[in-house]
Amino acid sequence: MADFNLNILGCGSALPTTRHLATSQIIDLRDKLYMIDCGEGTQLQMRRMRIRFNRLNHIFISHLHGDHCFGLPGLLSTLGLLGRTASITIHAVKEIEKYMQPVLDVFCKGIPFEVKFNYIDPNQHTLIMEDRSVCVYTIPLKHRIPTCGFLFEEKPKEPHIIREMVDFYKIPVKQLKNIKQGQDYITNEGEIVLNNRLTFPANPPKKYAYCSDTAFYPAIIPFIENVDLLYHEATFGEDEILRAKATFHSTATQAAEIALRAKAKRLVIGHYSARYEDLDVLKQEADRIFPDTILGMEGLVIPV
Amino acid sequence: MADFNLNILGCGSALPTTRHLATSQIIDLRDKLYMIDCGEGTQLQMRRMRIRFNRLNHIFISHLHGDHCFGLPGLLSTLGLLGRTASITIHAVKEIEKYMQPVLDVFCKGIPFEVKFNYIDPNQHTLIMEDRSVCVYTIPLKHRIPTCGFLFEEKPKEPHIIREMVDFYKIPVKQLKNIKQGQDYITNEGEIVLNNRLTFPANPPKKYAYCSDTAFYPAIIPFIENVDLLYHEATFGEDEILRAKATFHSTATQAAEIALRAKAKRLVIGHYSARYEDLDVLKQEADRIFPDTILGMEGLVIPV
Repeated sequence: MADFNLNILGCGSALPTTRHLATSQIIDLRDKLYMIDCGEGTQLQMRRMRIRFNRLNHIFISHLHGDHCFGLPGLLSTLGLLGRTASITIHAVKEIEKYMQPVLDVFCKGIPFEVKFNYIDPNQHTLIMEDRSVCVYTIPLKHRIPTCGFLFEEKPKEPHIIREMVDFYKIPVKQLKNIKQGQDYITNEGEIVLNNRLTFPANPPKKYAYCSDTAFYPAIIPFIENVDLLYHEATFGEDEILRAKATFHSTATQAAEIALRAKAKRLVIGHYSARYEDLDVLKQEADRIFPDTILGMEGLVIPV
Repeated sequence: MADFNLNILGCGSALPTTRHLATSQIIDLRDKLYMIDCGEGTQLQMRRMRIRFNRLNHIFISHLHGDHCFGLPGLLSTLGLLGRTASITIHAVKEIEKYMQPVLDVFCKGIPFEVKFNYIDPNQHTLIMEDRSVCVYTIPLKHRIPTCGFLFEEKPKEPHIIREMVDFYKIPVKQLKNIKQGQDYITNEGEIVLNNRLTFPANPPKKYAYCSDTAFYPAIIPFIENVDLLYHEATFGEDEILRAKATFHSTATQAAEIALRAKAKRLVIGHYSARYEDLDVLKQEADRIFPDTILGMEGLVIPV
């Protein structure tokens, strides 16, 4: 498995069906987990997909519609029952306080960890989180209420050590960290071994963009250009283009159009309206514009 | 199918597992639905069990632990999306307002129906709801926070008309309602046909009692005596009797003891701790005191 994977926990829309769960995704990046949206049932789907709760430290909420955040109270309660002590940060619009503070007051008295809130402005494209592995940026979207997507930009990885060279020069283990950071190696005899003989570069860093919920909105293209993987909502097919417009959602064709114009390497769609029992029509419509579009599906794990 | 059925939607406890869902039950009584508790995922389980949303008018919440009420926001949102116009009543402790009012304010602006609250006192045994078919009473329980169970007492049904007698006397349809209510019939010739020749009695009314979450608490026995079906939580087995005591839960043996002493006709158990992968041990322990205890299970429908 790659070290930057997208786990799709749910890709249905507001009305629940027996075929799809409410929206949630988990980015698994170098052994840390980053959740995007948390619809009802997310914690159960984590169990089903055997995703470990204790590696999760950040939750990003795109907007305050229930199918994107009604799983938060249950997830936080469970983390408390599991004895978590590390804090968890919820990145969302400030209004989430109105919803979550009473939940914390009524149900989470005495949980052994801190819930932090990082209030974000969904109208700005800005850096909202950074750690050793990734920078996360907001992507302003166009929906019925303030909404943003998220761009996950992996940081460059350290180069790989060439094991044979280490053995040949008998380089001590404590030197390896320096070499990974670009230093040359000087042998006991004073010979300088250049760093590029000791290492080979890691894979280039990857980018993942999450865009849901949104109307067709080409203004996002500059923020998501050349991403390795784009998730774009495709609530409707062309048959419902008027409804898509009225509800500030996108069709599969529009999702593909955005992917094409943004030169995304791959596109995965989701947030399917309950009316589509068969998703082939959405895939075919997207494929016409952006071939090999991936149909998002519960349980799917996609290497970014 | 009988006209008084218990649907078990979920019978797990606080920690979610892939084997059990959080607590929820639906009483299906003469074509009306009454929900008891509404853990996360309840609305989805209603879909799976093909239970129709529009026949639901009352929701009873036993206590404010998340595994008994985190499904409410999603359920109410879905009822709104489905275009419901009839009001729905939530029977619960007053503190539920702190949790639900913000949910209604943030997520349910403009839903086309009214959410009514009937604040109940969980420390009193008292009538909290009555309609044509049923009376619902609280049952004070003993848990870590204010908690009550619910007693559903069916109202007497009208007697059945003996079709052959109606045909023989050529009784007009408009007279049947009076006969069902106990009147005799007088023929055109003046002959009095006694009511007991025209009808036979309906089945006697039934009683269902729901008792969760609770420590072993014999004080409830007077309220649940002779019920046709008793649901009593059985979170633990005898191996965890100390933990049961500490957390104000019951063992399967204690549930059976209550059923026996209350002369319940049948007992169904649930609210199983996540530690029991195999529930046979709980059933065996209960059976020793109260034979043929029913193991509650997701999807089970039990005629009361």
